[in-house]
Amino acid sequence: MKNTRPFLGITMGDPFGVGPEIAVKALANENVYSLCRPLLIGDVNVFRQAVAFTQLKLKVRSVQSETEADFKPGQIDVLQPQGCCVKELLYGTVSAQAGHAAFTAIEKVIELAMDGTIHAVVTGPINKKAIHSAGYDFPGHTEIFAHYTGTKDYAMLLIYDEDSRFAGASLRVVHVTTHVPIREVSQMITQARVLKVIELAHDACQKLGITHPRIGVAGLNPHASDGGLFGREEHEHIVPAIEAARSTGIHVEGPIPPDTLFPKAIGGLFDICVAMYHDQGHIPLKMTGFIWNKGNKRLSSVNGVNITLGLPIVRTSVDHGTAFDIAGRGIASPDSMVSAIEYAVKLANTNKTK
Amino acid sequence: MKNTRPFLGITMGDPFGVGPEIAVKALANENVYSLCRPLLIGDVNVFRQAVAFTQLKLKVRSVQSETEADFKPGQIDVLQPQGCCVKELLYGTVSAQAGHAAFTAIEKVIELAMDGTIHAVVTGPINKKAIHSAGYDFPGHTEIFAHYTGTKDYAMLLIYDEDSRFAGASLRVVHVTTHVPIREVSQMITQARVLKVIELAHDACQKLGITHPRIGVAGLNPHASDGGLFGREEHEHIVPAIEAARSTGIHVEGPIPPDTLFPKAIGGLFDICVAMYHDQGHIPLKMTGFIWNKGNKRLSSVNGVNITLGLPIVRTSVDHGTAFDIAGRGIASPDSMVSAIEYAVKLANTNKTK
Repeated sequence: MKNTRPFLGITMGDPFGVGPEIAVKALANENVYSLCRPLLIGDVNVFRQAVAFTQLKLKVRSVQSETEADFKPGQIDVLQPQGCCVKELLYGTVSAQAGHAAFTAIEKVIELAMDGTIHAVVTGPINKKAIHSAGYDFPGHTEIFAHYTGTKDYAMLLIYDEDSRFAGASLRVVHVTTHVPIREVSQMITQARVLKVIELAHDACQKLGITHPRIGVAGLNPHASDGGLFGREEHEHIVPAIEAARSTGIHVEGPIPPDTLFPKAIGGLFDICVAMYHDQGHIPLKMTGFIWNKGNKRLSSVNGVNITLGLPIVRTSVDHGTAFDIAGRGIASPDSMVSAIEYAVKLANTNKTK
Repeated sequence: MKNTRPFLGITMGDPFGVGPEIAVKALANENVYSLCRPLLIGDVNVFRQAVAFTQLKLKVRSVQSETEADFKPGQIDVLQPQGCCVKELLYGTVSAQAGHAAFTAIEKVIELAMDGTIHAVVTGPINKKAIHSAGYDFPGHTEIFAHYTGTKDYAMLLIYDEDSRFAGASLRVVHVTTHVPIREVSQMITQARVLKVIELAHDACQKLGITHPRIGVAGLNPHASDGGLFGREEHEHIVPAIEAARSTGIHVEGPIPPDTLFPKAIGGLFDICVAMYHDQGHIPLKMTGFIWNKGNKRLSSVNGVNITLGLPIVRTSVDHGTAFDIAGRGIASPDSMVSAIEYAVKLANTNKTK
């Protein structure tokens, strides 16, 4: 390797969403090139169009293979995989064509990461319905990455950090379950799974430089069941998992009432939280990271990174969707994409020093 | 009635928690007397002790009946119901004796409100285990009030407002279900119940002066099930309830992905939210209202009011627990109690003008 900066593959996401726009905006920032060697994966014309409507002074350069990329600021290297192509740019619409193109870019980036060509993957937002209508049966990126890398034990980590409102506070949440109906969550809370997620949380913090992380585990039920008054999962599965983790030297507390754990964590009392289900973790994250503007009814700020733990490769992502309502207009914020790139670099560098 | 200020009954809550302390601290504020005529209900000696350890310059005056109270600032009127008595003050402990005393005060205040003697009730925090060990089988205040007032359709409203971090933003959340295990929530989400809670939310906003409230209803499942991908409750119960409410002229939107609704509401896009279960509503409320201090691992600020909707009487409460860890030390914040008193006054005045 000629260069020590990690080699990153960044996917365009759904071409009709804000993914291509936030990718080119992020790469318009020269500082990104001092951190890493970024290669965009997707339809070259889609990125050209994004550069055009954002009026950025960037050159879009199509490369035939990753070896051709030369990572110069001001010039964006794009690798277009076979079949990753949309005929017409229909911003804000759900389309099988767009879903197929987005999926092809993901397959390519996983292939490059699995063979060690690139050191980390950053993904742009996809649209679940578009992916489905293209014939792929996955609820989201996390499950696609798990499937194509043959990973059984994985978990979604969301990170929010550095907001002046909270004096640089941060919130990290790993999920025991994600895209499942609430009625099915209880049966998926097992001692083995909770223990695995505590271990993934511990490992992730160490990779991010927190040597002795303080982990807080949420209960499943209101008041963490209040000693069994509102549910048995705490007693039967969560407490034994916590005890098993503690016996291996992990610093972990819980089960903590869910409405207490997350405010405590943003206050700095925990480094990472283990959430039992999607919204238990996503609500506190988005309450801190997503600021809505009453006037135009749009997001005025987005802060958050999504990281898949447990994979054999590094994968980070923006923490928001395709934002079809504002796609193609040049007003999307690249903040979450820049954070996702920074976290990918951090994790790739950690792997390298091992 | 000689005086137009509403007559409020304020219960002490668990005598071994922070309830008595925050009540006397709130009444040490002269402004409270310009808003209402407050009468404390509980053990006189418990309040005397609270005045002593808080070192407030207040006289505690025992009245034999509510007619003897004279509501002078600097002098606290206390009505001690029969059997409301603790022998020794054991701050921070769960006790059947304390649970019995707390419960007796609640029974008395409900009696006074139901016969029209007082215009609103404000409750101090109780301890569920203490209540249970005293032989009363209720999960919380809300259910006690529903039972003793013979109310079938009621709902818990939590309100957070006026925090400078959010430029005076507010968050109001009404709950479709509360103290039930997560595994039982799904079966309690019925069209009739969701519709009822939307109506209670609408009515509550109007009583608080919001003439045309914008109501946002959360989905039950992640992404509000994303069109049925993760659950059926949205399609089968929540959507029909929203349509039924709309047909009566209520402005209501949803089902909205839970992790999107609450950030939108704090951004000012909704006046009130309908949450499907306890933590879906409590987590966003406490993320905004509860500020934890990393240094001493204690709450440095508490903002929130709990109001029971649907009762034939006005009942507001603090939004926090007994805080046994700091009880009897004089360091509890009365902020939530003062807000609860202000909301009780507001709602009592609305009833009066009807």
